[in-house]
Amino acid sequence: MAAIPNPMKLETIGVIHSPHQIAAGAPAQVAFASGFTGTVEIFPQFLGGLKDLAGFERVWLIYWFDRAAAARLEVTPYLDTEARGIFATRAPCRPNPLGLSPVRLLGIKGNVLQVADIDVLDGTPLIDIKPYVPMFDSFAARKIGWCSRIADGVKGVADDRFTAR
Amino acid sequence: MAAIPNPMKLETIGVIHSPHQIAAGAPAQVAFASGFTGTVEIFPQFLGGLKDLAGFERVWLIYWFDRAAAARLEVTPYLDTEARGIFATRAPCRPNPLGLSPVRLLGIKGNVLQVADIDVLDGTPLIDIKPYVPMFDSFAARKIGWCSRIADGVKGVADDRFTAR
Repeated sequence: MAAIPNPMKLETIGVIHSPHQIAAGAPAQVAFASGFTGTVEIFPQFLGGLKDLAGFERVWLIYWFDRAAAARLEVTPYLDTEARGIFATRAPCRPNPLGLSPVRLLGIKGNVLQVADIDVLDGTPLIDIKPYVPMFDSFAARKIGWCSRIADGVKGVADDRFTAR
Repeated sequence: MAAIPNPMKLETIGVIHSPHQIAAGAPAQVAFASGFTGTVEIFPQFLGGLKDLAGFERVWLIYWFDRAAAARLEVTPYLDTEARGIFATRAPCRPNPLGLSPVRLLGIKGNVLQVADIDVLDGTPLIDIKPYVPMFDSFAARKIGWCSRIADGVKGVADDRFTAR
């Protein structure tokens, strides 16, 4: 095994622009973000990495929850009323505050991606983009723990409970 | 916007154990890893974060590609014969070498997850775990760019092209 760099440092590769200025009122997941569009600006030095991406209908954004409160091991998720282990939730106040959103890709112009179904806060630092490929990413998992209590048609809206003060 | 920590540092929260000692011959994706099982060891200080996770059938592992070669903006993927932009691929030699695998969760004993369909190299540093929830993660994207050329029934096997020398 190669030596693990210590610390493992991330580099910002771009910035996500969205209509969501604060967590309170923002959609809690892509599934609740229908109708919201935004842009993903890639810094010029990474432009070459976008080649061939426009052929994909959906892309994973991996980003840094830059406004999240300090990590906690238990949280009460937006969509539940009981405390859950942080790794059984998608809450932002994680030991490594990485977010994961499978947004719809509408098009790419130069270094800017036009995206839909965006649930990310405006100004969030972008860490990675990966293509969404159903064969790799789409599974019919039936056991979904506490998420089975999420009611059909619920509006999954965030609030400020995980925001740094 | 809160100040972005500079640099953004990741903390290893555990280690992934698998039968795959080197990239050459390992499955290139979870979709090609049927029959391979492994374990995910969580460091004791994060144990409380695993509460409620056992109720999920599948979990996302986010990990650090610790043996990947230096980042490139174009790569020829394992499953293709043409050079593609790195962000249009899942190749490990990315600007931020983060991997993403939706493995099957067989069970949890203490701080150890038993997992199946594991495509990750043995000893890989774990960065995050998130629950796999079809409502949040499963989409019928039909436009999949160059991946539409991946033949049915292909064996997606990695080699050493992206391994650090």
